Amino acid sequence: MRFTCSKKDIYEKLNLVIKSITNRTTMPILKGILIEAKEEEILIKGTDLEISILSKLKIKNDEVGKIIVNAKLFYEIIRKLPEGNIEFFTDESKKLHIKNLNSEFELEYLEEEKFPFAKEVKGEKFSFDRDILCNMIKKSSSCVSRESTKNALRGLYIEINKTGISLVGSDGYRIAITKENIINEQEKDILVPVENILNIEKILREEKETVELIIGEKDIKFELKEGEIYLKLLEGTYIDYKKPFLEEMKTEVIINKNDLINAVERMYLLSPEKKNNKIILRLINNLLKIETSSDIGYAKEEIILDKMGEDNEFAINCKFLLDAIKNIDGEELKLKIGKNERFILIEEVENDRSQFLIMNLKK
Amino acid sequence: MRFTCSKKDIYEKLNLVIKSITNRTTMPILKGILIEAKEEEILIKGTDLEISILSKLKIKNDEVGKIIVNAKLFYEIIRKLPEGNIEFFTDESKKLHIKNLNSEFELEYLEEEKFPFAKEVKGEKFSFDRDILCNMIKKSSSCVSRESTKNALRGLYIEINKTGISLVGSDGYRIAITKENIINEQEKDILVPVENILNIEKILREEKETVELIIGEKDIKFELKEGEIYLKLLEGTYIDYKKPFLEEMKTEVIINKNDLINAVERMYLLSPEKKNNKIILRLINNLLKIETSSDIGYAKEEIILDKMGEDNEFAINCKFLLDAIKNIDGEELKLKIGKNERFILIEEVENDRSQFLIMNLKK
Repeated sequence: MRFTCSKKDIYEKLNLVIKSITNRTTMPILKGILIEAKEEEILIKGTDLEISILSKLKIKNDEVGKIIVNAKLFYEIIRKLPEGNIEFFTDESKKLHIKNLNSEFELEYLEEEKFPFAKEVKGEKFSFDRDILCNMIKKSSSCVSRESTKNALRGLYIEINKTGISLVGSDGYRIAITKENIINEQEKDILVPVENILNIEKILREEKETVELIIGEKDIKFELKEGEIYLKLLEGTYIDYKKPFLEEMKTEVIINKNDLINAVERMYLLSPEKKNNKIILRLINNLLKIETSSDIGYAKEEIILDKMGEDNEFAINCKFLLDAIKNIDGEELKLKIGKNERFILIEEVENDRSQFLIMNLKK
Repeated sequence: MRFTCSKKDIYEKLNLVIKSITNRTTMPILKGILIEAKEEEILIKGTDLEISILSKLKIKNDEVGKIIVNAKLFYEIIRKLPEGNIEFFTDESKKLHIKNLNSEFELEYLEEEKFPFAKEVKGEKFSFDRDILCNMIKKSSSCVSRESTKNALRGLYIEINKTGISLVGSDGYRIAITKENIINEQEKDILVPVENILNIEKILREEKETVELIIGEKDIKFELKEGEIYLKLLEGTYIDYKKPFLEEMKTEVIINKNDLINAVERMYLLSPEKKNNKIILRLINNLLKIETSSDIGYAKEEIILDKMGEDNEFAINCKFLLDAIKNIDGEELKLKIGKNERFILIEEVENDRSQFLIMNLKK
């Protein structure tokens, strides 16, 4: 293998592929990246078995070849080299040489064995507006559990039908839904691991304005400007999340978002950690009164409301409430309580594209 | 106790005192701060037994009093409250009330028992230029051990005589010295714990341009604009650090600082972690050749020198070398090797106010 390219070009590619490399592995091969020099391009590949990333660098190569080197080390060396051309070549003693004007590095490499990169995905093709999809992923992921071993609770559920797309996340105590009207040719519903989809979301933000993806039986593939991301889907059926949203509402108020964030953040300091950070909210006339107490003290707050439904009272985990409020766009938000008072629903004032449902701790 | 003040004023004071509060304590009283409302001022005090901070807020008080409340909680509540006036008062049930227009908090408090704040310091008074002193602290602390149980190795040594001040730090493998010519009336030498003096250095940067301090037998006191910091001195005698600096030099070169930093940072990636991150430096004619290898690979670098002494070769811990280089001011630095080749000396080109001595790993 022998090729020369600029530091900038290869660093940009590595910076993408490195996001698929994990430290939490006992398989040495997963600490490596595959560098494949073809005649007209270099392919760089990495994987942690769940997520696989391929990045392509268009350059003519002097000698083709395929090697695996330690990903983090290779990445750090390139990162620390100055701008300018870098020469890469292998020798008979299984060393990769990385060379510029004043520096030379030699790294051990492996010949390509069975590098466990994702298989090609066969399935239906979809495309979505990048900003819309990324915002939906971020908002609906806010309710998904990071610790659960249950696929439904550590996964983000994506439901595509002919008139729209919905993303749903839940940890069993709360549900987030984001919806968008988009015409699709196909229908599909899948469950993706939340941590990986959030990593992919960050990558997509830097990519094309339209996200193109192929959904197969067991994988999903994202097509990038000069690369590809493959993600393994989670198996299992999703929870029946629609029912609580259909309940008739009893109380509905509109509140200034920042006032509520600030008040709840202060409440959080005094809320009882061992009792789900419970705070009590009372809607009385045109006032929202919030109260909490724990063994360290007591706190209360009052917020004047713009608009008011029936008087009501409920208790809520204030961390969950904060997560929800912070994912609402706009200066105000709508807070609703259903007839049987089992849940509190938080949504935007103008529309119901983002909805957050949180369990009432009183019932 | 009863007083009213602006959020801004009390937050500024708390922001200083909170720096003396530690989480690493089993003594509940150290998690508290003392609030003392006198007729014309509020005193706020915190301590971790090594460092004690007092901050004064000039306001007239309605009712005097002295209480201890949980420092972190009190600080966070004030931090999260909006700008504007805050009312503070105690009630018969031993609660401190913190109140503004829309919020009210009640915190348990302790009556002032024996709050272990530092005693008044009696001793000699000194004053130094803030920027000079802070820079000296930062540079000479870079060589001090963070883990050693030996006072000499976890302390920064400060030596004041009638014509100057020197700060010396060492972890047993390297020594940093910073010196400045200043006329002092008194002579004194003390040993201060490095982590605390670095925290104080950060505080001093925001304070008066002249640092005023009083050095007693067991403590040092820094006088601030509206407060005081007390620090316990370390006991014990300091190492004999002067001898290696007196050695006659054999080789002396001048190197571009950034070239050397970049090269050594790359070397670090391949240097053997289990063998003191050793790298080998060879001074041959007008070249510095650097080399290292470990079980993950091999690296070499070349830097052209401006100026050159006798040819020489030495081995050095590249982390230590980086710490030293980064503490050198200016675009270039001087690197010297003594006659018996036991140490490498790094200093500024223009003067010897900052010197870093690192053990040669070859001998």
